[in-house]
Amino acid sequence: MGSSFGQRFVVTTFGESHGGALGCVIDGCPPGLRLDLVAVQAELDRRRPGQSALTTQRKESDRVELLSGVFEGRTLGSPIALLVRNEDARPADYAAMKELYRPSHADYTTEARYGLRNWQGGGRASARETVGRVAAGAVAKQVLAAMAGVEVLGWVSAVGEESVQIDPATVTLSAVESNPVRCPDPAAAARMEALIRAVRAEGDSVGGVISAVARGVPAGLGDPVFDKLEADLAKVMLSLPAAKGFASGSGFAGARMRGSAHNDRFVPGAAPGQIVTDTNHSGGIQGGISNGMPITLEVAFKPVATLGRPQQTVDRSGAPATWLPRGRHDPCVVPRAVVMVEAMLALVLVDHLLRRPPRLGD
Amino acid sequence: MGSSFGQRFVVTTFGESHGGALGCVIDGCPPGLRLDLVAVQAELDRRRPGQSALTTQRKESDRVELLSGVFEGRTLGSPIALLVRNEDARPADYAAMKELYRPSHADYTTEARYGLRNWQGGGRASARETVGRVAAGAVAKQVLAAMAGVEVLGWVSAVGEESVQIDPATVTLSAVESNPVRCPDPAAAARMEALIRAVRAEGDSVGGVISAVARGVPAGLGDPVFDKLEADLAKVMLSLPAAKGFASGSGFAGARMRGSAHNDRFVPGAAPGQIVTDTNHSGGIQGGISNGMPITLEVAFKPVATLGRPQQTVDRSGAPATWLPRGRHDPCVVPRAVVMVEAMLALVLVDHLLRRPPRLGD
Amino acid sequence: MGSSFGQRFVVTTFGESHGGALGCVIDGCPPGLRLDLVAVQAELDRRRPGQSALTTQRKESDRVELLSGVFEGRTLGSPIALLVRNEDARPADYAAMKELYRPSHADYTTEARYGLRNWQGGGRASARETVGRVAAGAVAKQVLAAMAGVEVLGWVSAVGEESVQIDPATVTLSAVESNPVRCPDPAAAARMEALIRAVRAEGDSVGGVISAVARGVPAGLGDPVFDKLEADLAKVMLSLPAAKGFASGSGFAGARMRGSAHNDRFVPGAAPGQIVTDTNHSGGIQGGISNGMPITLEVAFKPVATLGRPQQTVDRSGAPATWLPRGRHDPCVVPRAVVMVEAMLALVLVDHLLRRPPRLGD
Amino acid sequence: MGSSFGQRFVVTTFGESHGGALGCVIDGCPPGLRLDLVAVQAELDRRRPGQSALTTQRKESDRVELLSGVFEGRTLGSPIALLVRNEDARPADYAAMKELYRPSHADYTTEARYGLRNWQGGGRASARETVGRVAAGAVAKQVLAAMAGVEVLGWVSAVGEESVQIDPATVTLSAVESNPVRCPDPAAAARMEALIRAVRAEGDSVGGVISAVARGVPAGLGDPVFDKLEADLAKVMLSLPAAKGFASGSGFAGARMRGSAHNDRFVPGAAPGQIVTDTNHSGGIQGGISNGMPITLEVAFKPVATLGRPQQTVDRSGAPATWLPRGRHDPCVVPRAVVMVEAMLALVLVDHLLRRPPRLGD
Repeated sequence: MGSSFGQRFVVTTFGESHGGALGCVIDGCPPGLRLDLVAVQAELDRRRPGQSALTTQRKESDRVELLSGVFEGRTLGSPIALLVRNEDARPADYAAMKELYRPSHADYTTEARYGLRNWQGGGRASARETVGRVAAGAVAKQVLAAMAGVEVLGWVSAVGEESVQIDPATVTLSAVESNPVRCPDPAAAARMEALIRAVRAEGDSVGGVISAVARGVPAGLGDPVFDKLEADLAKVMLSLPAAKGFASGSGFAGARMRGSAHNDRFVPGAAPGQIVTDTNHSGGIQGGISNGMPITLEVAFKPVATLGRPQQTVDRSGAPATWLPRGRHDPCVVPRAVVMVEAMLALVLVDHLLRRPPRLGD
Repeated sequence: MGSSFGQRFVVTTFGESHGGALGCVIDGCPPGLRLDLVAVQAELDRRRPGQSALTTQRKESDRVELLSGVFEGRTLGSPIALLVRNEDARPADYAAMKELYRPSHADYTTEARYGLRNWQGGGRASARETVGRVAAGAVAKQVLAAMAGVEVLGWVSAVGEESVQIDPATVTLSAVESNPVRCPDPAAAARMEALIRAVRAEGDSVGGVISAVARGVPAGLGDPVFDKLEADLAKVMLSLPAAKGFASGSGFAGARMRGSAHNDRFVPGAAPGQIVTDTNHSGGIQGGISNGMPITLEVAFKPVATLGRPQQTVDRSGAPATWLPRGRHDPCVVPRAVVMVEAMLALVLVDHLLRRPPRLGD
Repeated sequence: MGSSFGQRFVVTTFGESHGGALGCVIDGCPPGLRLDLVAVQAELDRRRPGQSALTTQRKESDRVELLSGVFEGRTLGSPIALLVRNEDARPADYAAMKELYRPSHADYTTEARYGLRNWQGGGRASARETVGRVAAGAVAKQVLAAMAGVEVLGWVSAVGEESVQIDPATVTLSAVESNPVRCPDPAAAARMEALIRAVRAEGDSVGGVISAVARGVPAGLGDPVFDKLEADLAKVMLSLPAAKGFASGSGFAGARMRGSAHNDRFVPGAAPGQIVTDTNHSGGIQGGISNGMPITLEVAFKPVATLGRPQQTVDRSGAPATWLPRGRHDPCVVPRAVVMVEAMLALVLVDHLLRRPPRLGD
Repeated sequence: MGSSFGQRFVVTTFGESHGGALGCVIDGCPPGLRLDLVAVQAELDRRRPGQSALTTQRKESDRVELLSGVFEGRTLGSPIALLVRNEDARPADYAAMKELYRPSHADYTTEARYGLRNWQGGGRASARETVGRVAAGAVAKQVLAAMAGVEVLGWVSAVGEESVQIDPATVTLSAVESNPVRCPDPAAAARMEALIRAVRAEGDSVGGVISAVARGVPAGLGDPVFDKLEADLAKVMLSLPAAKGFASGSGFAGARMRGSAHNDRFVPGAAPGQIVTDTNHSGGIQGGISNGMPITLEVAFKPVATLGRPQQTVDRSGAPATWLPRGRHDPCVVPRAVVMVEAMLALVLVDHLLRRPPRLGD
């Protein structure tokens, strides 16, 4: 269970890290969209392992196949099924750990829940599951652009203790993609890359933070109580592997502020009749509903649990054991996770775009 | 929409801040529970306005009435409807602001979404909506205790710049309830209370952080992909009014750590066959599934937007206007929000407790 | 569970036959509707016990109270909670049957499911639960009329072996309400009324059929696979107490026909560009989607299980027992069930009206 | 939308009649099941076109591929994705009808809903969509057998005016499969086959009725209000292409009966403590909940709309047009629909089996 997200643009993902294939089914995509499959592939390429020296060396081409939902280049309104085959699964790499619980992995909890081990590389808890999410997110981005001119962008704002402030109003995709860390500030990116290389050389890993913005979001998205826009954003971000924290607008910093400083004053905007705020501590969301300002958020990721060194743990009987990893892994997850954060942000926004109520007047 | 939460223990809340009544309907409560209504009332009293000098002086007795779902003292398995009448609604206090948008409130966004103003004190975006959540959470706590011996507890860990570290393994309800701030450390509580009083004297407000723990949660709760346990926790916490940030276990601090320090080693526990971890950076959740360790989290709340001083804003035509608040409000939301955080934590846990899959063996 | 229906216009009902109160919460009603509470009460009056000599003599005024969701006479887009108090519950009437299972009632199955008896008159399985549905249906009718000019109407087309054919295109509410049977044909109504009186005199009960039509439904409502319009209609109709069968358009008669006779030919309509069908065996639905023709359906109801004579059964230990009913009951359910069928039809249509997808063009 | 069914055993289907592939994703299958793929293929073979002289001659091998959710032969508890490629799609056969609306097909309504034509053979409204349902139903049958010993079986009980009564307590799969009509009574089967051949020779089609039974269903499945067991059964049956009517137990015949004849008396069963009923007009369901007796139902199917002769209709401009079908089709849908009815019955039962509430005692 739990493999679906959304009420009106419903994404269901399937596939395990070392099974035959991964993919997604999108139900609720509006009909008539000219679906750009090249753009979907480009997003998968941003997520793909082996794309740079900073990532795992697992070799996957991650070619996407469209199975349904499109006719003569346009979406039909029927389910869009997208498929990616696993090519470089090496289950044998994992056989040695069949009887032990890797620290801070999902081995122990998966067995507690399902009564069995899927010892081949993490099953559904693996970051490889996000192939389906990124493919769906790429479709969601196209719907957002077509329906509302919304643009979604993420970037790395911290790796370990190296962090940087970026202006969400002006950051560009080309700046993000200009380096393998996906930090749009070149100097910070260089420091982060050096840190990742150093950590890997030590057989260690390091966490980081991804920031993201959605620009052009119309006012009025989000439901007031349980399905506040930031609530759904928090859910999807914490549903990403290794995510540990979420901030909407001012986040934890806002907890230290006074109301007189935190409140965003409404002021007339540039366009006639437009109303904007002079600051954006609200992160574009007030009372759970978008206010037309940029939606800003941050997601904290813990360091990858697989290290290039032995770790103490226990086996299934509870006896002490040593884990010597053979599987391939990333020393830092955030460069590849940028496109995952963007995908999740796009999925929430397109779902809420399709959830707006009609209004009855006189 | 968005007034329901849960898949198996489904809570629907209703009611506006200045309407006739508030309440909730719980569908999916297991049958046979001896429902303790006194305990439900006690939780509502922890949320009630006017309970101390630190809170809003709106006078509400918040007496709960049970409308359905219980027969001869036991739950029937049918919907439990709980009702609380508004007593001290003063819509006239809000008439002056009928034509303006209060800064960092939901006035502007509600109108953007629904095409109308519910100018009487915030409607569904008001913290008063949480009456229904707290009532439902009180029932959820009873189910958790009866089914699995789970205990849920929250406390204030920061008010503005005043913060404190509390051991989630040992903190007690009586310590939390020993002072009006609901911080279990008396010295820190005194500093926090002084800060709240000072801020109020300045006509200002201040944010804060609530920490919470669930003890006794069995391993195996949570679904691996979109409905990870921390994902659902993030959602409900960010659905609370004024919440801006969420941390599961190590949270944003975890993003700055190395994997070698962050990984929680599995070690034999005290009981025969038991497996525990020596640290708990995971916050009791790995791969989205509980591991039997205490579930720990933090929620950041922004300062209340209503201040005891005039604020600049615009009216519905976009012209500059000044807001002179007459409604009653809290200078700091966290003391009363502790029980809201506990309620949401309990609701997520009971829902996932009821979502565990059966296992098929040979 | 199972107390909610709908995806976009979500109705949750609560309350037992002999508990304190019954009601519903509607989440997703579009904002801005001038809600006519008098019309809601009028629908409840059509469902009310004791309204004629043909119905149970339980005395309930069934006065509805609006608890939330409306401000200055208009819907807010927030949940609408409606409450009706039980007044003439007589649990003592049921004490004698506390230890036995009434034939063809829900006593045995409720205990099998929940492990307990709610012996006071049927709990959630009682037709009294439909109070909440009828109240919600009355709101749905107003939304349908305001949004799309849709009109919903039901009538009794059979009582036992007495049946009549009515033209769904022309039948009127006043004809339906002109007699206590709610059959718009006066001669048939007289025969049906005589049959009901005769059956009651024998201490027996009798089944019947309700037909219904929705006129003015725009083409394009319904989803093609699991949520076909007739699928959702079938579900809600079979969810009514005592319902045993459902027919969409030609129904079981259609199974005996040839395609050449059953196919509805498209022909130009009266309005320019309009397309209609010359027959309507499809009942206004093709491929699960409305085609603009009247939506027609039938619902079969079994005879009420409570009789005015002793019945053989077993008690909870499995030993033979005799049931001597003391509770009040209807000899035939269909006159009061007309408004229930209309309510369910309205709920499905309004939900699907709010589920139409947007279209993306060039 | 509407491509998913179930709350705990959630099936999502994808694929169009003349697209690249069809399939399903099952989320919520319990872990640990030894999945028998040969049995899944066998069910697809019962649905396959071209299996006998009575069916469409479209040539599809309908080979199923398992993409995910199984490891070492056992289900993982993760989504099971099943894929079937289209092989004999002949879109050119449909090009001629690109501009006209086929009578009693979904062409007109699909365009009304989505603003576009998927003129290649019906898209999602085609019976070919049921490939995914039958595959999912085959998995559901295995879960039902493993968890509860439940057996599901359907058969043809009427073709046009030829009908037969079969005892649901004793009918066997081998009797059903002993002839191409799938009617377990050989004499009736011969009459039905002759009728189908005669109708086809006339370029016509004919409707029919499928009956089904589930044996061994434990008491206690079903929710009392909207999700009554017969309500969910009615929904899924009416969601099948060409279905027009549904009967639970006595169905429309029950509407003509007296309560004294219709009531099923409880009597002691053969096993100690067992309680059964002496008749089964309830069809195994009382108050929406299974009572342990066989669950019996009927589904009426209209005649196929595609005929072997020209039909009058209109084109997209509303002008009169003649449809000369070139696509291949069945003269009577019921022989191949038996396995679809079984699949839907199995899907509802397994979902409700997984929805049973826990009970809290003292």
